[in-house]
Amino acid sequence: MVLQRLDDRKPDELRSVSFELDYTRYSEASVLTKCGNTQVICNVTIQPGVPKFLQDSGQGWLTAEYRMLPGATQQRQPRELMKLSGRTQEIQRLIGRSLRAAVDLKVLGEKTVIIDADVIQADAGTRTASITGGFVALANAFDKLVEKGELEKSPISHQIAAVSVGLLEGEPYLDLDYEEDVAADIDFNIVMNDKLGIIELQGTAEAESFTRQQLNKIMDYAEIGIKQLLEAQRQALNSHQ
Amino acid sequence: MVLQRLDDRKPDELRSVSFELDYTRYSEASVLTKCGNTQVICNVTIQPGVPKFLQDSGQGWLTAEYRMLPGATQQRQPRELMKLSGRTQEIQRLIGRSLRAAVDLKVLGEKTVIIDADVIQADAGTRTASITGGFVALANAFDKLVEKGELEKSPISHQIAAVSVGLLEGEPYLDLDYEEDVAADIDFNIVMNDKLGIIELQGTAEAESFTRQQLNKIMDYAEIGIKQLLEAQRQALNSHQ
Amino acid sequence: MVLQRLDDRKPDELRSVSFELDYTRYSEASVLTKCGNTQVICNVTIQPGVPKFLQDSGQGWLTAEYRMLPGATQQRQPRELMKLSGRTQEIQRLIGRSLRAAVDLKVLGEKTVIIDADVIQADAGTRTASITGGFVALANAFDKLVEKGELEKSPISHQIAAVSVGLLEGEPYLDLDYEEDVAADIDFNIVMNDKLGIIELQGTAEAESFTRQQLNKIMDYAEIGIKQLLEAQRQALNSHQ
Amino acid sequence: MVLQRLDDRKPDELRSVSFELDYTRYSEASVLTKCGNTQVICNVTIQPGVPKFLQDSGQGWLTAEYRMLPGATQQRQPRELMKLSGRTQEIQRLIGRSLRAAVDLKVLGEKTVIIDADVIQADAGTRTASITGGFVALANAFDKLVEKGELEKSPISHQIAAVSVGLLEGEPYLDLDYEEDVAADIDFNIVMNDKLGIIELQGTAEAESFTRQQLNKIMDYAEIGIKQLLEAQRQALNSHQ
Amino acid sequence: MVLQRLDDRKPDELRSVSFELDYTRYSEASVLTKCGNTQVICNVTIQPGVPKFLQDSGQGWLTAEYRMLPGATQQRQPRELMKLSGRTQEIQRLIGRSLRAAVDLKVLGEKTVIIDADVIQADAGTRTASITGGFVALANAFDKLVEKGELEKSPISHQIAAVSVGLLEGEPYLDLDYEEDVAADIDFNIVMNDKLGIIELQGTAEAESFTRQQLNKIMDYAEIGIKQLLEAQRQALNSHQ
Amino acid sequence: MVLQRLDDRKPDELRSVSFELDYTRYSEASVLTKCGNTQVICNVTIQPGVPKFLQDSGQGWLTAEYRMLPGATQQRQPRELMKLSGRTQEIQRLIGRSLRAAVDLKVLGEKTVIIDADVIQADAGTRTASITGGFVALANAFDKLVEKGELEKSPISHQIAAVSVGLLEGEPYLDLDYEEDVAADIDFNIVMNDKLGIIELQGTAEAESFTRQQLNKIMDYAEIGIKQLLEAQRQALNSHQ
Repeated sequence: MVLQRLDDRKPDELRSVSFELDYTRYSEASVLTKCGNTQVICNVTIQPGVPKFLQDSGQGWLTAEYRMLPGATQQRQPRELMKLSGRTQEIQRLIGRSLRAAVDLKVLGEKTVIIDADVIQADAGTRTASITGGFVALANAFDKLVEKGELEKSPISHQIAAVSVGLLEGEPYLDLDYEEDVAADIDFNIVMNDKLGIIELQGTAEAESFTRQQLNKIMDYAEIGIKQLLEAQRQALNSHQ
Repeated sequence: MVLQRLDDRKPDELRSVSFELDYTRYSEASVLTKCGNTQVICNVTIQPGVPKFLQDSGQGWLTAEYRMLPGATQQRQPRELMKLSGRTQEIQRLIGRSLRAAVDLKVLGEKTVIIDADVIQADAGTRTASITGGFVALANAFDKLVEKGELEKSPISHQIAAVSVGLLEGEPYLDLDYEEDVAADIDFNIVMNDKLGIIELQGTAEAESFTRQQLNKIMDYAEIGIKQLLEAQRQALNSHQ
Repeated sequence: MVLQRLDDRKPDELRSVSFELDYTRYSEASVLTKCGNTQVICNVTIQPGVPKFLQDSGQGWLTAEYRMLPGATQQRQPRELMKLSGRTQEIQRLIGRSLRAAVDLKVLGEKTVIIDADVIQADAGTRTASITGGFVALANAFDKLVEKGELEKSPISHQIAAVSVGLLEGEPYLDLDYEEDVAADIDFNIVMNDKLGIIELQGTAEAESFTRQQLNKIMDYAEIGIKQLLEAQRQALNSHQ
Repeated sequence: MVLQRLDDRKPDELRSVSFELDYTRYSEASVLTKCGNTQVICNVTIQPGVPKFLQDSGQGWLTAEYRMLPGATQQRQPRELMKLSGRTQEIQRLIGRSLRAAVDLKVLGEKTVIIDADVIQADAGTRTASITGGFVALANAFDKLVEKGELEKSPISHQIAAVSVGLLEGEPYLDLDYEEDVAADIDFNIVMNDKLGIIELQGTAEAESFTRQQLNKIMDYAEIGIKQLLEAQRQALNSHQ
Repeated sequence: MVLQRLDDRKPDELRSVSFELDYTRYSEASVLTKCGNTQVICNVTIQPGVPKFLQDSGQGWLTAEYRMLPGATQQRQPRELMKLSGRTQEIQRLIGRSLRAAVDLKVLGEKTVIIDADVIQADAGTRTASITGGFVALANAFDKLVEKGELEKSPISHQIAAVSVGLLEGEPYLDLDYEEDVAADIDFNIVMNDKLGIIELQGTAEAESFTRQQLNKIMDYAEIGIKQLLEAQRQALNSHQ
Repeated sequence: MVLQRLDDRKPDELRSVSFELDYTRYSEASVLTKCGNTQVICNVTIQPGVPKFLQDSGQGWLTAEYRMLPGATQQRQPRELMKLSGRTQEIQRLIGRSLRAAVDLKVLGEKTVIIDADVIQADAGTRTASITGGFVALANAFDKLVEKGELEKSPISHQIAAVSVGLLEGEPYLDLDYEEDVAADIDFNIVMNDKLGIIELQGTAEAESFTRQQLNKIMDYAEIGIKQLLEAQRQALNSHQ
């Protein structure tokens, strides 16, 4: 049995996705990423130097920060001061890990890349939008550095994108919005590269469990979504040049 | 002697100002405020209840939070975690105090208004843009509540706006941008209401001092700027209805 | 090609596992869990009351705290004061989520269960040992409450266990020790219930990626390990009565 | 209409002011400053070195810390631990900025001056008393260093003092005490140098606004008060030698 | 062999001690305590209510806070923000415990007494001066409450005082100053009541140890000092009435 | 009058004491110390380098950390995050100070020893068990370093041990358990070396006071207990070799 989605999407259909490059002017690259009503500003900063554990390794580093504006959600959420919530930390670690998989850190050299993903409107899928949009910002930033002659070639080694899949009443649905996310029994986030190699896989069942068969179907849907996101990224980057 | 401004403005000329209402969709009101290259998202949340010191007073409260995205400035600035800088605290106290002067807190009743001013691009004047744009968001939020029947009438008691004036080589300049702000010897922020009554006046001379005559000229310039900002606020609010 | 494991285990062989019940005397239940050289004290506390978001829901709550003794690792690690690392937070959220899947929170009623997982010796797999041993402590605590007449029946709804699988040179290995964990390209943690329904799946590839075929083989190995862990849990709980 | 002041002062009359030099023995200079019932211990410490942003500039720095003893106010106020209130931060930034305007930081050389202003009794005007008394302590500290031969000449470039003026029922009153401060609609703090050049001007109207005419009258009163404070500072410093 | 003390005191001689009552005006009682060059402001606040663990017990509570002004010592000491040092916490716990031994908490009733001991000049013995002077402030505060009719009788049950004794080259010296304190091998703080009953005894030997015989001699000296302090307290309190 | 102890011990009788060496495998030394039902894991880490105040002194340092597992007590105690309680800080300072008295820091050289005392079960006397067991771990760690040739000789200069004595109804009892500790009016902790020289003496009377005669009897009991603990330490260390 297939549920009717509020926005009439088919179960394996993405929300509309767009990337607005050069969104703000002072970062190395700035991309307003929209996945349906979810909107994330992805800014890239590149600084000389690396953390201690990499000094004199010839190798660079990439780290991410993720935050929501207080007004991004339906109920205002207080800012995280004094300590980050476990959720925020998990998400920014995931974004950092995923985007490091897109970069040849040796080609980058002893520089540190900071991806700031600031959600200004949240309709679920903020972490996957941060990764997918963060990749566009990252590639764009490197392109600019190459153009300026500050890098010989772009350190991008893989194109990557991320998407969510959920199970509602046992059936998979691609790219959940907030209403669907709340209703889902099982929630997956999948990060893949341009060869559909899996970079990261996180599936959580709060009250239910899922089978190997369901896992397979979830992966099928993820591949459908990721392929389209990869294409949308390429178009945004190409049309920008 | 009058200095040539980088953007060819006259000494008493404002930067272009605009207000984009309904910028995001989940806050009570959301306004993207642009003053030249300075851009601030002003979101309004209205919650039931008041802080302890006002309980059972029949009176509401308004408070403000101010923050910059890390990538808003020419050099990325780390997020303020663990503690807010003195600068941030001063600014959010100023925004809150100024916007409270726009509201009849008794008409509001025992509700708390939170103004979130998040700077996404900073080219000086972020605190005055937060106040001027915050007023538009505030008035818009109250209009919506009146429309929805949740308030009988808008608690707005005064229209208010804010502008900066600086002294460079002893002469006043209205609405400084970043380059001018760095060069200025004396820096003023002025908040006024629709009758040009002064709400707040802050003038600081790091290495210099200024005379009563200069103070007078600064106030003249402030009045020129405030009048135009008040007019721009009215247009934005009227054209939106 | 299959690598020779340092302790001569086969690729799909678990380390020896044991559970010492009643390890300390003041907690509701206390289990010293050993998976190879990894040792975790799992203590259970049950308190009246629930967090705010569950008040008057008739439903209980379960939460977990995870920490390492400073001397648990080969290099002493400083205690986490002021803030928990992202890693610690991720792990204790995972333990809590996984063990909540073992409990019918309505049968529990408005009580809060706290699982303290304190690692006294760490040879990799501390989070999966915390979950597997945490289940034994949890079931034991409920049995005691039933015996004392404080609960009518045990709120355990599913038996659950957790195990790690890693890919080294493209091949899967079950239940990695520290040396293997450091060498692995891809690292999986899998939580399953007694019907081998999947509760939680987390796979991370720092520098590599993995295929759908590899994912399948990883899940096969996980099932082999989980079955044995479930059996060991049952023996420990039965022999204790 | 002029209100009768509780202590029979005229509207433009200061409270009695005194400076007790060498109040404690271990600081470079220590001055107990009394403005009416407001009492502040102003201690000066001079340390080698400067903050990073000034290293190798040949130039010194001056910073201030402001705090109240818990028993200084009519209701005991808890100590500020974990974070300073916005009010405390604003005040200590104001004290620092104002006293930096009194010092030629190049003559000082790469040293850091710390002004500790600890209020032991608070009857309003604590920030202006801290500045006025802080100047005396600062000048005294430099005099001692010159005497000891550690400085060739005093780095004092300007004498500065600060005073408050408030509007009650639309009329200005100089140097408010606590009862008046609570009653005032508008509250000004003015810092001036020995030529009555204005260093800092802060005027705040919580619920009211004020006119340009009122601003002028406030400045007249401030000049009256500042002149007397400058004279009292000179007497204290001269009689001390 | 007896060492010559810098201020010519005999080994069993106290420094001059004085208590200035009504030192500041807003606390319930305020006493400037001087023991030689050590100066401590002891302020007493009495508030309705008690901590949770005493609610509805009919019994009051007393707690102490201890802090040094940054300029109180020969080298300026940074303020303790974010966390109190172990030393500060030990001292304020000692002061609280000792002064609770002076009060019949049932006679006090459900009120909380806060003793703020703020050291403005430190020449060793600050914790014992805080206790000895804190007692005077406490007794004075209760006397005032009795006078005002807010208490039927003073809750003071014992007069208490505190003194330090040190061992230098194996010989005891009473009431060490800073130079002696640094030189001492063993350091004792003793709190006694008016019958020379011992309330608290803390002896620490960083690098040495001491014998039962030396302990006896230390206690003899402590008794000599305590007797004189008790007498000085009585004189201060009597002459004040 | 002598009270009957719950476990039938005589007033001057210790609880059974044992030391399990090599309790965990990664620390330099690890000792599970049991004093009755009190159980403490004492781990020793030795690191190169010393704190700033000792750099280039040729001398080492020793510091201690003390913590309880949340489930160690009859009521679960929350972990100390953000700040350590005064009690915890006092105890870890005492452990550090006492064990430094056992070590010739010059023989140690510029190394830092960290003693981690983690209480897994608390039945009173946790601080004295941490010191007594900490000494065994410390001596064992040094023996291993000598054996490995990393130290020429053990830096142990004194054997030390610690014990508690309490007064119940005016009579002394050695080595209190939790029930006795709660009932005691006066509580003593005594640290001595192998010549019964006193290292540290802390006696506290919350509501009572004690006499010089009682102090003497307390010291007699302490000597009885310490002698046995010293003997037990020697046996554990000798039988281990």
